Amino acid sequence: MENEDLTNIFAKTIEENEFMKMMGLEAVEVRRGYAKCRIKMDRKFCNPYGTLHGGILYSLADITAGFAACSYGPKAVTVDGDLHFLNPAIRTEYVYCEAKEQRRGNDLSVFGVEIMSDRDKILDTGTFTYFNIH
Amino acid sequence: MENEDLTNIFAKTIEENEFMKMMGLEAVEVRRGYAKCRIKMDRKFCNPYGTLHGGILYSLADITAGFAACSYGPKAVTVDGDLHFLNPAIRTEYVYCEAKEQRRGNDLSVFGVEIMSDRDKILDTGTFTYFNIH
Amino acid sequence: MENEDLTNIFAKTIEENEFMKMMGLEAVEVRRGYAKCRIKMDRKFCNPYGTLHGGILYSLADITAGFAACSYGPKAVTVDGDLHFLNPAIRTEYVYCEAKEQRRGNDLSVFGVEIMSDRDKILDTGTFTYFNIH
Amino acid sequence: MENEDLTNIFAKTIEENEFMKMMGLEAVEVRRGYAKCRIKMDRKFCNPYGTLHGGILYSLADITAGFAACSYGPKAVTVDGDLHFLNPAIRTEYVYCEAKEQRRGNDLSVFGVEIMSDRDKILDTGTFTYFNIH
Repeated sequence: MENEDLTNIFAKTIEENEFMKMMGLEAVEVRRGYAKCRIKMDRKFCNPYGTLHGGILYSLADITAGFAACSYGPKAVTVDGDLHFLNPAIRTEYVYCEAKEQRRGNDLSVFGVEIMSDRDKILDTGTFTYFNIH
Repeated sequence: MENEDLTNIFAKTIEENEFMKMMGLEAVEVRRGYAKCRIKMDRKFCNPYGTLHGGILYSLADITAGFAACSYGPKAVTVDGDLHFLNPAIRTEYVYCEAKEQRRGNDLSVFGVEIMSDRDKILDTGTFTYFNIH
Repeated sequence: MENEDLTNIFAKTIEENEFMKMMGLEAVEVRRGYAKCRIKMDRKFCNPYGTLHGGILYSLADITAGFAACSYGPKAVTVDGDLHFLNPAIRTEYVYCEAKEQRRGNDLSVFGVEIMSDRDKILDTGTFTYFNIH
Repeated sequence: MENEDLTNIFAKTIEENEFMKMMGLEAVEVRRGYAKCRIKMDRKFCNPYGTLHGGILYSLADITAGFAACSYGPKAVTVDGDLHFLNPAIRTEYVYCEAKEQRRGNDLSVFGVEIMSDRDKILDTGTFTYFNIH
């Protein structure tokens, strides 16, 4: 399967999932072992301090890394994932997340994630582990 | 301030925040250094496998621990937080989250979180660290 | 196999491993899904601030949880593990670590760890994930 | 202060600390916000499976990131740190660790760590958070 097809396949996954649509999630690029997604800043996802809720950022990270984990075919479920909130998500039109493969195993795969602003400022970093369901 | 007041104060925080309301979040109990919240299972928060999205569970955990972190007064921002997905959130009416203080510092506070089903089955565990803004 | 036997079996594991012996590790109690170990405070394991090195505490945690993970029989390797340093390890004769099972799976097991002083003050908390090698 | 001086300063820190010397730790390079250290593979630091103990790898990671955290001057203590064990440390003469600054704050700093073999194979990744003591 071509990489362009992969991006389209996950765009379709988003279309069929209510929560991903509600977030306004977009699949920017999906290749084997890699994914990039984005969401638009929206007041309705902000915490009382006016920055994006940590849970929205974590949703973006888990879904992006999940796309990368599923890019080889089998289903994958999240084992664990952490997020380090380095800088608040504020004053940016979009928030981008990239997931890069750190380990590809038969059973377990690990992805590093970075969340960035429009100007490529790193907002959050994290690591997500997936178990492949064969 | 009394503990009953604390629960009411955070119920009001929910009322005033669009994302928390959209999640259907309820503050069950907030005391100094402790918080318990719940959300109702809803198809619209489920992933393509039919279980609650990890990001919704993380939102629940971060907000619950954040209430516990703010229970002493000053504002607190999340430094980092991880979640271990032990069992899928499925076949339960509500999903509960408890946050218990592990460390209370002037600058940094740490909370252990547990997410449970109606029957007190542990679904997820995690640890969240907050920085107090004086 | 009886629990007393399990404690003895892991005491023998320590006897046969140079690093565990060097740490002065003792298996206090091992049951299925549970382990408790301890080490003696020693200047030679302290950092320049006079408290136990984080790496020694992590070694204690990973080995203790590893014993609990191996208490059912098959070998288990660490997938990941984190440690939160709540209070410095200082002014205690021994440092204790307890590992309690949070999830027992065919492939993946998860253990919560607590490191305590002589007076049961919690010094560190963490979560360790193991993959069972069948 | 020059970067060459920084490397020498931390080489001296190692000389004066019994545990770091016992590990055979070497400071390869320390700059502001960056550190690289290494240790030599040694049977006496291996677990019963013949690969380096997770606790030795964590010690290497925490000390390396700690050097980077202290490279600006003030003392720094570890808040938390996690390690993901991607590939076993085996069949390599040295094990290298690099710590790169992800966030530099007045109070809190965050470093990403990578542990590599002689041939730059990534063995472990992690994130360490430090609190600066002014």
